[in-house]
Amino acid sequence: MKYDVIIIGGGPAGYTAAEKLAAGGLQVLLFEKRNLGGVCLNEGCIPTKTLLYSAKLYDSGRQASKYGVEFGTASFDLGKMVARKSKVVRKLVLGIKSRLAQAGVEVINGEAFIIDKNRVRCGEVVYESEHLLVCTGSETFVPPIPGVDRVPYWIHKEALEVKELPRSLTILGGGVIGVEFASYFNSLGVKVTVVEMMDEILSGMDRELAALLREEYSKKGVSFLLSRKVVAVKEADGEVVVEFEEDGVQPVASEKLLLSVGRRPVVKGFGLENLNLEVTKQGYPLVNPCMQTSIPSVYVCGDLTGFSLLAHTAVREAEVAAHSLLGKSHSMSYRAIPGVVYSNPEFAGVGYTEEAAMKAGIDYVVRKMPMTYSGRFVAENEAVSGLCKLILSSDGSVLGAHLLGNPASELIALAAMAIQMGLKADEWKRVVFPHPTVSEIFKEVLM
Amino acid sequence: MKYDVIIIGGGPAGYTAAEKLAAGGLQVLLFEKRNLGGVCLNEGCIPTKTLLYSAKLYDSGRQASKYGVEFGTASFDLGKMVARKSKVVRKLVLGIKSRLAQAGVEVINGEAFIIDKNRVRCGEVVYESEHLLVCTGSETFVPPIPGVDRVPYWIHKEALEVKELPRSLTILGGGVIGVEFASYFNSLGVKVTVVEMMDEILSGMDRELAALLREEYSKKGVSFLLSRKVVAVKEADGEVVVEFEEDGVQPVASEKLLLSVGRRPVVKGFGLENLNLEVTKQGYPLVNPCMQTSIPSVYVCGDLTGFSLLAHTAVREAEVAAHSLLGKSHSMSYRAIPGVVYSNPEFAGVGYTEEAAMKAGIDYVVRKMPMTYSGRFVAENEAVSGLCKLILSSDGSVLGAHLLGNPASELIALAAMAIQMGLKADEWKRVVFPHPTVSEIFKEVLM
Repeated sequence: MKYDVIIIGGGPAGYTAAEKLAAGGLQVLLFEKRNLGGVCLNEGCIPTKTLLYSAKLYDSGRQASKYGVEFGTASFDLGKMVARKSKVVRKLVLGIKSRLAQAGVEVINGEAFIIDKNRVRCGEVVYESEHLLVCTGSETFVPPIPGVDRVPYWIHKEALEVKELPRSLTILGGGVIGVEFASYFNSLGVKVTVVEMMDEILSGMDRELAALLREEYSKKGVSFLLSRKVVAVKEADGEVVVEFEEDGVQPVASEKLLLSVGRRPVVKGFGLENLNLEVTKQGYPLVNPCMQTSIPSVYVCGDLTGFSLLAHTAVREAEVAAHSLLGKSHSMSYRAIPGVVYSNPEFAGVGYTEEAAMKAGIDYVVRKMPMTYSGRFVAENEAVSGLCKLILSSDGSVLGAHLLGNPASELIALAAMAIQMGLKADEWKRVVFPHPTVSEIFKEVLM
Repeated sequence: MKYDVIIIGGGPAGYTAAEKLAAGGLQVLLFEKRNLGGVCLNEGCIPTKTLLYSAKLYDSGRQASKYGVEFGTASFDLGKMVARKSKVVRKLVLGIKSRLAQAGVEVINGEAFIIDKNRVRCGEVVYESEHLLVCTGSETFVPPIPGVDRVPYWIHKEALEVKELPRSLTILGGGVIGVEFASYFNSLGVKVTVVEMMDEILSGMDRELAALLREEYSKKGVSFLLSRKVVAVKEADGEVVVEFEEDGVQPVASEKLLLSVGRRPVVKGFGLENLNLEVTKQGYPLVNPCMQTSIPSVYVCGDLTGFSLLAHTAVREAEVAAHSLLGKSHSMSYRAIPGVVYSNPEFAGVGYTEEAAMKAGIDYVVRKMPMTYSGRFVAENEAVSGLCKLILSSDGSVLGAHLLGNPASELIALAAMAIQMGLKADEWKRVVFPHPTVSEIFKEVLM
């Protein structure tokens, strides 16, 4: 049997495209070597957010007396939290499975290998297809630090399964993953140290808000070591010692070590080289705005493009690719891709940061206000601060929006809409935001 | 001294307009007879949401074991909750006061009386002005039920100050205020009965979702008596007895009674009649889309127009009026005014309900999905259901959106934006919603 489209990889890009293509009447075959949902659903976005929610509940309970509510003792059952996390993941994986089945997508649980642009092998069987959609994703990057191969360490996957807490944890890498795990383990009482090579955490996000968030977590007891280049890791006295340059070499020792310095696209091991695609400077497949590669019948979406490495980017890219394959014209736009840190408080941004606007030589203005200008924020956040910051162009167009304060993750889509649609501040503020909500903060800042 | 604008009423309409007009260079005088912020801030939106948040924390703590978190005992200190509520209100009132002062608005804490379109009296002093902006708001409507003048009852104001809980409470009126207080007192362990004349609670909001919310609260122990016309109230054995028609007359007795059948504009007592304005059929001042009355120098905003009776409508009307007074052209649009019920789960809607679309003879389609299609909703809501429902026109334009599930209050602004800007489903779904968020549910339903 010959398929219209073969998709390799059942993560957010793969399952999104598969459902849309099958709904559009195409014969679709999807290969997934592990579980549907990919890293995002199985060991990324969803499990972290599930655990972080439990941790947040634990924190809220311990803070409840500020709001007139008293809980006698506070404790958590880490085994139960982790089991629930796995249950949530299973439920959502089953959800995707059933949606794909309902749409008529054929799913093969196996490792696919690309023979050429029309043929894919899995085990002994060769499958043929008109089109190929490759979305094999990314993997954790383990930095080549001297000694890293001789010490025990966690990456995110293991950290999600921890049922016995260490006393102390060093996290290498203060990006989104590092900060979210710092938040999680800090809530649960672990002494956390974050070591970051750059001079601020959360590189790429708004610096001012990143610093505020860092200060917040410093108050909660997390140690941040910025601008520290790690030169070696080793074991000593049953602890993992991370050594970094600072007036010679300084050590930081912890019971456990978590590596979260980044992820990178997986380009080897599944025959991608057989396609001989044009690639970017970084060596990732080059795509046009329809996610089409240099071979017009081959599409690439998601982390493999090396562009954004975010599930929601992958989903949108998959929609664009599916539309293109179905003969409709969409094209991928990256100007309003939100980024979210599920810390507590949450931190989210979309569009230009102030730093990026400056670097791009754009004539911009900054407008910002404390989140306490929202009445609801005050009602629900006792002694918690936050900030909303907008970057506007000189003609009033919304270029960027950055929020520190709950529920930033849910509010940032408002700014994503404004930016995607090219709204000017004056147009955006005509929208009636319900009162009292935290979402009104945008209206306040737009005043 | 002659002012450019005299504003009567310092609620959301009044303080919003005052700040904008003063920022626009006009000489502004604002009269407020009680506290800045009006009913919304002092005895409405803000205090209810503050108390509801404490109640929600109490509920969350008691449900925490579902998420692997255990709190020994759970209790609340109602005195502390109410004191915090008052503190939040004071803080926000001070915030408005300082914003008005900073903008250069003159505020007089006193009762104003309109002499004519250019003169207002307060005490013995007469103030003159080019323009008048009247936003005196609304008051609780106490229905003329036989016996109502002889029984003790609460309206919202008293309910907010309760420091000793009754065993049981009957709430007359299942609108937003009634349902929010039902939620609050139910959380705190009071036996609540809601008596509603219509055949569903939350008239004007989506019926299907209103019914789901009602069922949710029925499970929590709230009794709903729908389609019940109350014919009398009386006291007996130290309880308040509400009698309604049902196979004769049936009684429901409770320790306390809360009246929340509605609010209506205040048109008397401050000389409005001296302006001789053209009025609507209901007797409220008639305004044009710039909020201008039949006297061009007199504007009316907020509840006094009798149109929407929501703080955020008042705010937008005030912006429109201020713009008009400053010579810019905005006009008031009511097509995307969100409505929110701060129950738990929250319920919010904007634009056409299915019932309204049907009644208007619009050719529409309904698309809906359980909230559990959002991974984050699943992560944060154990054994809680919810629904997202969109009303689209035959050409794909978004006409209405209705959400049951947290944080509906914060998400509904997304739909308000889509409707206000006349987006089609196809345009809206090109927006990249961050993953995993509950906001993605819109994208799912738009698929």
